[in-house]
Amino acid sequence: MPEVSKQAVTVLGLGAMGSALAGTLLAAGHPTTVWNRSPGKAHPLVERGAVRAGSAGEAIAASRLVLVCLLDYRSVHEVLDAGTMSGKVLVNLTNGTPAQARELAGWAAEHDADYLDGGIMAVPPMIGGPGAFLLYSGSRAAFDTYREPLDALGESRYLGADPGLAPLHDIALLTGMYGMFIGVLQAFALVRGEGGEVKAFAPMLGRWLTAMSGFTERSADQVDKGDYTIGVVSNLAMQAAGFGNLLAAAADQGVSAELMTPLRALMDRRVADGHGAEDITGVIELLKVSGKERAK
Amino acid sequence: MPEVSKQAVTVLGLGAMGSALAGTLLAAGHPTTVWNRSPGKAHPLVERGAVRAGSAGEAIAASRLVLVCLLDYRSVHEVLDAGTMSGKVLVNLTNGTPAQARELAGWAAEHDADYLDGGIMAVPPMIGGPGAFLLYSGSRAAFDTYREPLDALGESRYLGADPGLAPLHDIALLTGMYGMFIGVLQAFALVRGEGGEVKAFAPMLGRWLTAMSGFTERSADQVDKGDYTIGVVSNLAMQAAGFGNLLAAAADQGVSAELMTPLRALMDRRVADGHGAEDITGVIELLKVSGKERAK
Repeated sequence: MPEVSKQAVTVLGLGAMGSALAGTLLAAGHPTTVWNRSPGKAHPLVERGAVRAGSAGEAIAASRLVLVCLLDYRSVHEVLDAGTMSGKVLVNLTNGTPAQARELAGWAAEHDADYLDGGIMAVPPMIGGPGAFLLYSGSRAAFDTYREPLDALGESRYLGADPGLAPLHDIALLTGMYGMFIGVLQAFALVRGEGGEVKAFAPMLGRWLTAMSGFTERSADQVDKGDYTIGVVSNLAMQAAGFGNLLAAAADQGVSAELMTPLRALMDRRVADGHGAEDITGVIELLKVSGKERAK
Repeated sequence: MPEVSKQAVTVLGLGAMGSALAGTLLAAGHPTTVWNRSPGKAHPLVERGAVRAGSAGEAIAASRLVLVCLLDYRSVHEVLDAGTMSGKVLVNLTNGTPAQARELAGWAAEHDADYLDGGIMAVPPMIGGPGAFLLYSGSRAAFDTYREPLDALGESRYLGADPGLAPLHDIALLTGMYGMFIGVLQAFALVRGEGGEVKAFAPMLGRWLTAMSGFTERSADQVDKGDYTIGVVSNLAMQAAGFGNLLAAAADQGVSAELMTPLRALMDRRVADGHGAEDITGVIELLKVSGKERAK
């Protein structure tokens, strides 16, 4: 019985991430055509069996499934304008905003192409490994048809038909990560400010953050219900009062508290608004920007 | 063979935390004397076997080990001034800064008392349970002598002779937690801004933050060595460029990015200073406040 042949894939853009995607597809046995503006990036992939297209247009013509991973959406438009997209399935893995993804999905529809947007929750060395996961939104048919090559890249999750959902979740996850970075860096600065070794402190911090991660679930429930009194264990007024120690300790050690002061301001405003007995989650209400403020 | 009698303890301050401490010590079989400015707080503990002292001075006289858990250091001084501290072991679990702990340790030494400072990494309902851990610094002898009642409260960790170490680590851990809160709340605001249910997103965020927590260890190594080129997987310049999407997506959804913009500013400054090829950890160098700036 002959082996079922794997689906052909074109990869446009061979930066660190594009190269990792193409290399992983090759390793999984998919006939892979590659293209990059500076052609040298294709060499290592060609050595591993990839076909190098002479132009973006040729690359697009080579496969029905076209993966795009470029610097930004302007590059995506420039590159795709060089080819004929009719009948193609465009899977766009370029970083961008939900609005950009929706705009590109509209462009694809006008060009008679199916559109799937993807958010890659991994760094290039993780692609194809157990830790990588990728978020998709847009055409369900495209996701289902090409599940095999997509799954080769990492765990695939389909979020819904709105093409903006994948970049939204991608950005929200990165935002959560940067918040964690803010806390870790500020904490390290405090420990270093007293001359301490940060390495001895790091495992304690890791353990503490894991212990506190139950906050996320309770907080989500509060946000969805719009009720910040659910399951309060340490109320906002108490936390706002204690926050002064964090700032005083930083000042004593010559560490700037600029990463933390915006949260402090929101906590104080929320307490002043009469929500001191609620959970800290309620500060999320102050993150809504009114139409008037948005127009500024 | 008679049972070895448990060490007697006095607990000053019966707010939610002080009451949890006293209740846990009672449950562990320690003769416990309690005092609170408003005496009604002692009732439930007296019903469980605690002795209510008529005054702070009487409470201090009742046990060699004196645990203090009050609103702030001013209250601690007021209460302790009412008693005779000579020969006592003062374990101060009141929230404060390293500087306040050192000052109180000096006061204790002047009054011929041994001093141990403690940071409670738990909320009151967790006291005595498996999730509670408490950090101590100051007198090693005090820690060793009273290890049994201290261990009854939660896992005890001794950090060193400098009494400021426990509040320093306490504050650094809380700082890390507030950073995590910043990220979670901002991420939730983005998902809610698109009309999404936050509850479906929360487990994805939890998984992502766990996957990214390796950052803490690598970052600690970089800080201790002052070398932000170690093990870089995504350099600062790339991250700074991508950060724009986070801010653009927030603006599109009417979500304020005020919690994230200070990090953005530090990232941009660090790139402008020529450190774009290094890890994001290097922004910690910008958190050092110079003597001149501190004097402002």
